[in-house]
Amino acid sequence: MKAEKHKEKRITPRSEDFSQWYQDIVEIAELAEHSPVRGSMTIKPYGYAIWENIRTVLDKMFKETGVVNAYFPLLIPEKFLKKEAEHVEGFSPQVAVVTHAGGKKLDEPLVIRPTSETIIYEAYSRWVESYRDLPILINQWANVLRWELRPRLFLRTTEFLWQEGHTAHRTEEEAEKRTKQMLSVYKNFSENYLGIPVMEGLKTESEKFAGALRTYSIEAMMQDGKALQMGTSHNLGQNFSKPFDIKYLDEDNELKYCWQTSWGVSTRTIGAIIMAHSDDKGLVLPPKIAPVKVVVIPILNKKDDDKVLSVAEEIATKISLGLNTDVKVDRKEIRFGEKHYYWEKRGVPVRIEIGLREIESNIVIATRRDTGEKIEISQDDMLDKIREILDDIQNNIFQKALKHKEENTVRVSSWDDFKKQIENGKFVLAHWSGESQVEKKINDETGATIRCIPVDIKKEDGKCVYSGKDSQGLVIFAKSY
Amino acid sequence: MKAEKHKEKRITPRSEDFSQWYQDIVEIAELAEHSPVRGSMTIKPYGYAIWENIRTVLDKMFKETGVVNAYFPLLIPEKFLKKEAEHVEGFSPQVAVVTHAGGKKLDEPLVIRPTSETIIYEAYSRWVESYRDLPILINQWANVLRWELRPRLFLRTTEFLWQEGHTAHRTEEEAEKRTKQMLSVYKNFSENYLGIPVMEGLKTESEKFAGALRTYSIEAMMQDGKALQMGTSHNLGQNFSKPFDIKYLDEDNELKYCWQTSWGVSTRTIGAIIMAHSDDKGLVLPPKIAPVKVVVIPILNKKDDDKVLSVAEEIATKISLGLNTDVKVDRKEIRFGEKHYYWEKRGVPVRIEIGLREIESNIVIATRRDTGEKIEISQDDMLDKIREILDDIQNNIFQKALKHKEENTVRVSSWDDFKKQIENGKFVLAHWSGESQVEKKINDETGATIRCIPVDIKKEDGKCVYSGKDSQGLVIFAKSY
Repeated sequence: MKAEKHKEKRITPRSEDFSQWYQDIVEIAELAEHSPVRGSMTIKPYGYAIWENIRTVLDKMFKETGVVNAYFPLLIPEKFLKKEAEHVEGFSPQVAVVTHAGGKKLDEPLVIRPTSETIIYEAYSRWVESYRDLPILINQWANVLRWELRPRLFLRTTEFLWQEGHTAHRTEEEAEKRTKQMLSVYKNFSENYLGIPVMEGLKTESEKFAGALRTYSIEAMMQDGKALQMGTSHNLGQNFSKPFDIKYLDEDNELKYCWQTSWGVSTRTIGAIIMAHSDDKGLVLPPKIAPVKVVVIPILNKKDDDKVLSVAEEIATKISLGLNTDVKVDRKEIRFGEKHYYWEKRGVPVRIEIGLREIESNIVIATRRDTGEKIEISQDDMLDKIREILDDIQNNIFQKALKHKEENTVRVSSWDDFKKQIENGKFVLAHWSGESQVEKKINDETGATIRCIPVDIKKEDGKCVYSGKDSQGLVIFAKSY
Repeated sequence: MKAEKHKEKRITPRSEDFSQWYQDIVEIAELAEHSPVRGSMTIKPYGYAIWENIRTVLDKMFKETGVVNAYFPLLIPEKFLKKEAEHVEGFSPQVAVVTHAGGKKLDEPLVIRPTSETIIYEAYSRWVESYRDLPILINQWANVLRWELRPRLFLRTTEFLWQEGHTAHRTEEEAEKRTKQMLSVYKNFSENYLGIPVMEGLKTESEKFAGALRTYSIEAMMQDGKALQMGTSHNLGQNFSKPFDIKYLDEDNELKYCWQTSWGVSTRTIGAIIMAHSDDKGLVLPPKIAPVKVVVIPILNKKDDDKVLSVAEEIATKISLGLNTDVKVDRKEIRFGEKHYYWEKRGVPVRIEIGLREIESNIVIATRRDTGEKIEISQDDMLDKIREILDDIQNNIFQKALKHKEENTVRVSSWDDFKKQIENGKFVLAHWSGESQVEKKINDETGATIRCIPVDIKKEDGKCVYSGKDSQGLVIFAKSY
């Protein structure tokens, strides 16, 4: 039986095998599974509920900056992809191609969108005529497909869900401002909702988006010290407006090409949540995006169970209304410990126990998922206390992740030290000459990549840690997902 | 310039050419457009905002019946589709096939989901083991693709957005109950949110979903008298659980096949809203799903414009907070009449004018989109009045559509009368022998199909309007979209 199989499943400790631990968490918390189509995943209800919360929060943040949603076609004529040279080079090897449809061979193959710049900008070229039509600030929530041979659930799958914002502006300055604005929306979202501290920075030429002028990203450190790119924001310059002919008549009566941006985050963020916060007991979720923030577990022992259940329901209703959130009551007829474990491995921030003893003392017992601490709460100020605990969990997991990141970020100046620290799984701040071939050699020798050129570190002169040549500033190296 | 082009665009009257009128509304209200990929559409921001509201309402209704969301893969192995004979026969001619991906020819072709029964039920076969795992009540919001040679925006497009619910149950009775429950959710949604009255009924064998035991649908009458299927709910019986081997161990320790249902509504509902309510001036939206319920139009004349604008903003804020809805203030520096027309053609339920005269009299002027009526409202009880007007519009457009449907539904008993009434664009209630060949002949001769066997009409004996053979009850014939 399914329930029993799950009970038996052991979670591999992080220290033993981090990658297996990750897979165990995804499986045991019932977040997702591999699909029969190689590289694709099925997002199970609990995992999808997390995505729904992520979407709701981000969507609101986007709309507050003036962005509206729309929907563009899944299929893109192959010739569109070819209009921007770097773009086609970057994405061609990854696309899935439709050659037959409606029972016939197609005259021209269609690709399933790996990203939607080309199909969207073809529309913009028809929508934009005057400076009055600008800016265009559109986002789309969609599935995209990039063929993947070494899939990992949430982190790297052939099909994934994401949002992609696409804007068109009158000036270069406005486009750059929007690129950075969306990066800071992502940082705010990651830190204040997911509880994951990030570094903002610029990608190097070899790591930037295929077709972008500049790519900014936010990078987070996972518990194993590896970096995960959580979101990217691209200043596209006029790289797409020129081949797609997106021109506007300016006030001075001259036809000019638009300046553009695009930016996205995906279901990958769910992988980040797992690897940033969870522990050997299971998933740990930030309260702000947890599908179930509080669960009430009645302690049943065949004696006065009706009374206990009815108080449990009352308490759940009170918390649900007071905190405006779904609260579950676990009425399953299984051992109390099993129920505790069930919700613990699913990362529910607060578990509330209530039995006869608690009813008599007018209390409930709250267990925090992050620390495991048990807290006795009077039923009289239960709402305030639970609200406090949820806030404290949200803050605590962020601080914990921040501390971990700070303790594992080191500055090095010698090549030997560099290699050692990368080997130890650190984020390494080091000088770099700015040359792509050096970047490549470092990667070949250590497996580390330049995660970003941080925007919040003061520029300073120095010598490249690998080549000894002049350097204008520090960059962040790390192994990454 | 774009704005000027739109101003010039004339809306074809319904009486002149209903089909062209429909296209004009979609274009002039900026809801959607054809994409360069034949058969696909781009849903523009205003059209997509309507879809977002539809989704929010339906999603809440589903969740109230215990349904949760999940996400299954876009690509389906061709062999899955072939497991259910009727299903593959029905959908094969419509699918798009991926033959190449990641730069290589695939060993087995993958089809883009035309609907997801097969890929979802493969998962269910692994998820279900015991009767304790049932029911499974999952919905997915997704894009699907059915190759379309004669596309019409929203009504029939190659790619469309929809929701598809997929449930698995322990008993036949439970599955039938869920099939009808979801049909009644759809009816409630259509009537009380979209303002479109519908008929609930059973599809005939030849019109049912490919693979279903029984298909129920809700059918609405458009302003031209044609029927539009607004949503379907299928009792799948064990037609899929057998080939996909979805078995559970029952309490009696026997392995049994599940009983299943699936049900869906799509972006087609936006086409229904247009054709049910709109007029020769443009779109008419039901307040409950209108992206903008109220717009405030300041009357500017270069004199005290600052004052007028500031009062307009105040009023908008008040309405926005009071009604918990987005309210726009149209600050565009164009003629007042043009602004009125702009929001009228977009179907905004209430336009509020405010100028110096109104400020002095402490009033605003509200214009109803449905009737064109102008109503003077005191600013003191503005919120209550606007709330009343919105409720009244919602009710009025429903009653209008209901009256139209009732006046254009006729009962006939002779074949001559049948042909005449179908020609006149009526819904025709008539006896039918129950034979598929008769159904086909009627369709060949008149273009009408059996929309459904209504569930709310008492069974009665009679003679088939075409064949004269015995009939057990009345069915609804009409031309349809």
